[in-house]
Amino acid sequence: MKSSKMNKRRKFIPAQVIVTYYFIAIAVSVVLLRLPGVHKPGVEVDFIDSLFTAVSAVSVTGLTSLNISETYSVFGYVMLILILQLGGIGIMSLGTFIWLISGKKIGLRERQLIMIDHNQSNLSGVVYLIKEIVKILLLIQIVGAVLLTLYFTEYFDTFKQAFMHGVFTSVSATTNAGFDITGQSLIPYHNDYFVQIITSILIVFGAIGFPVLIEVKEFLSNKNKSFRFSLFTKLTTITYGILLVFGTVMIYLLEMFNSFKDMPWHEKFFSAFFHSVSTRSAGLTTVDVTLFNEGTTFFMSALMFIGASPSSVGGGIRTTTFAIAVLFLINFSRGKTNIQIFNREIHLIDIFRSYAVIILALIMVSMATILLTITEPTLTITQIIFEITSAFGTCGMSLGITNELSNIGKVTIMILMFIGRVGLISFLFSLGGKSNQTKYHYPKERVIIG
Amino acid sequence: MKSSKMNKRRKFIPAQVIVTYYFIAIAVSVVLLRLPGVHKPGVEVDFIDSLFTAVSAVSVTGLTSLNISETYSVFGYVMLILILQLGGIGIMSLGTFIWLISGKKIGLRERQLIMIDHNQSNLSGVVYLIKEIVKILLLIQIVGAVLLTLYFTEYFDTFKQAFMHGVFTSVSATTNAGFDITGQSLIPYHNDYFVQIITSILIVFGAIGFPVLIEVKEFLSNKNKSFRFSLFTKLTTITYGILLVFGTVMIYLLEMFNSFKDMPWHEKFFSAFFHSVSTRSAGLTTVDVTLFNEGTTFFMSALMFIGASPSSVGGGIRTTTFAIAVLFLINFSRGKTNIQIFNREIHLIDIFRSYAVIILALIMVSMATILLTITEPTLTITQIIFEITSAFGTCGMSLGITNELSNIGKVTIMILMFIGRVGLISFLFSLGGKSNQTKYHYPKERVIIG
Ligand SMILES: [K+]
Ligand SMILES: [K+]
Repeated sequence: MKSSKMNKRRKFIPAQVIVTYYFIAIAVSVVLLRLPGVHKPGVEVDFIDSLFTAVSAVSVTGLTSLNISETYSVFGYVMLILILQLGGIGIMSLGTFIWLISGKKIGLRERQLIMIDHNQSNLSGVVYLIKEIVKILLLIQIVGAVLLTLYFTEYFDTFKQAFMHGVFTSVSATTNAGFDITGQSLIPYHNDYFVQIITSILIVFGAIGFPVLIEVKEFLSNKNKSFRFSLFTKLTTITYGILLVFGTVMIYLLEMFNSFKDMPWHEKFFSAFFHSVSTRSAGLTTVDVTLFNEGTTFFMSALMFIGASPSSVGGGIRTTTFAIAVLFLINFSRGKTNIQIFNREIHLIDIFRSYAVIILALIMVSMATILLTITEPTLTITQIIFEITSAFGTCGMSLGITNELSNIGKVTIMILMFIGRVGLISFLFSLGGKSNQTKYHYPKERVIIG
Repeated sequence: MKSSKMNKRRKFIPAQVIVTYYFIAIAVSVVLLRLPGVHKPGVEVDFIDSLFTAVSAVSVTGLTSLNISETYSVFGYVMLILILQLGGIGIMSLGTFIWLISGKKIGLRERQLIMIDHNQSNLSGVVYLIKEIVKILLLIQIVGAVLLTLYFTEYFDTFKQAFMHGVFTSVSATTNAGFDITGQSLIPYHNDYFVQIITSILIVFGAIGFPVLIEVKEFLSNKNKSFRFSLFTKLTTITYGILLVFGTVMIYLLEMFNSFKDMPWHEKFFSAFFHSVSTRSAGLTTVDVTLFNEGTTFFMSALMFIGASPSSVGGGIRTTTFAIAVLFLINFSRGKTNIQIFNREIHLIDIFRSYAVIILALIMVSMATILLTITEPTLTITQIIFEITSAFGTCGMSLGITNELSNIGKVTIMILMFIGRVGLISFLFSLGGKSNQTKYHYPKERVIIG
């Protein structure tokens, strides 16, 4: 411990760079959201609500203490779209760029996080990767916007209206921001499976993680005959898929006699499926989630707590963290302390990381919950837990309480959105400094556990 | 994985012995609770409620689906006291005895769990240890019963009444069972700080862990000049103390303007203190906990989830598990993967164990919560979470819903009480078989976490 304190904070580490970028992005966003003409005529917005919207947009969470469609002008929508790019695409590609320019100073660990098995350890490789990230994400958004705009001409009188909704919905879905300009999320499209399928696909593209997209592209392009998917891609994709299916089944079962009871089976299915997709990190909804029963909201809180893939536009503890925890439990109960999967072995350090992330997340979410029961005495604990896990998972679903929060409540939610988006590992390392293994050892002694 | 499946279940392992003992103890208890004369005249009890009481008593939880004072006769009380000894003292001393008679077959690990640093690795040492456990726990109960009986003569008209309440309260507190024959826990004594202090001391003696008691006795007897407290004793005692103080402060703050608002400060303090003590595992209450606000009940649910010391009469994930999780997080955020404390280093296997216990506990408690939201549609999720963590932590506090539970609900609570008391490590090992490290290795590959 002593040696740890002495070495602390000597070097500016990549995790601190990301956190700093985030603060700057939030500051820029607040300025953008206070520009003249951003609001609809006659609308006044408190500073804390602009800040809240900025944090929510940069962290692509989508919780808002005001009604976007009633507050912001078309110019305001454009600003929001820009901010969503800063938050969604920005964090990964700018982060990569920063790692690039810090050159040899950065450790192997961070390089591996970017390069994941691409054998691109040189400068051009990193530039290529950033370009790919931006290109792929923008391409997905454009395709989504074109499809939705064309389709929305049936819903809206003018092409301008359809275009505005098409673009905003596409950006909001792909960046998993979950903002809406309908005033009621995607509830107007609760019977429209085309809109739901398109937005679901966009959401998954955003939340599945950049490395997965790049590897799939590489796989499809067939340039590299010896290509194999990385362990990360396999693990996160399968976990994402399992959570998606499990979530759909559970929400279907939990709501079939409740809020879904008057729906035909296909609408029940799509309602369950869409909200399972959405809890990964998008936060868009097609039904009024306040009608869900407490079991469903608790279950969805757990899904939001888990969140999306790392290196995606999502938040939470992340799919891989959850997967490693479960795999570890299964292996440990069989008497093994290592995890072997897909003919690979998980590194010990990643088991440690997943443990640290889960404990920190649990402590944060529990403490925030108890704090909000004090500061928001009119709210139920179900509403509070849902709001908090939604913020931490940068999901943005709400039981309709965001605008009722006290200022302490709003600040708490902002901090959770921020940490959820930055990621707990980056957050931890930005606090704690570099790896700092003690060189001396004490005698080991067993204690009784569990 | 293949080699794991092949080796599984070849040997009868100590953890399975404990589980088996527990099943037998429950069966014996059901028989005792169905004896003629056990119930008050004219009272009929369903089999599931006798089973529920038996499981609750053997696991010293104290949740009851019926009112003890209205249901059982004095003979029934005596049976309950016997069952509490089977569950409280029985699990540790009989477990030790079983380990003893299995002799050389048992591994070093289990021996260490019993012997913890006592340098008593021979037969006579183990016999001595069992005798000590029984002796110390019975002595504590007798001293408590004498003090409370003498004091209760002020409350009751007859000495017989005072004696009955004194003995039952002492046994119920020391074994942390939390059963009561007043019909309203210790609420009749909410102004009586003597009763609260005595019961708190008895509760702590039961919940602090047998190794701590034995080491303190050894320390006080001064026989061994080179005596030092084990890492386990230091860790669990300090964690227990921190949780006690933190719990008292938090309950005081959370309830000072709510259910405690009309109390003088000393009654506020004692109410907070007693329920902090009680959430470790006792489950006795001095105020109506249904009046607590949702923040307090959620906080107390977290405390009950953590539970008491290992090798005690309590349940939950256990203090040491929680302590190691927090210490690991602190160390990991400083870049260290080992935990050094009190000039000792925590074994890697114990870090692994704490991780497995926490993940399994979270999954179990979450799944049980969602199940009960389905089977008990009239209950709030706050009531359900409180009941479930109370069962898992073998605490036995309830928001008054135990007798309203459906049969599925009762069975769920019984399973949680059973697993909570047996302990997740024993439970895991009884499922999974012996340590079974794979001999071959795959290449290691990093994944992105959190
Ligand atoms: K979102
Ligand atoms: K108890």
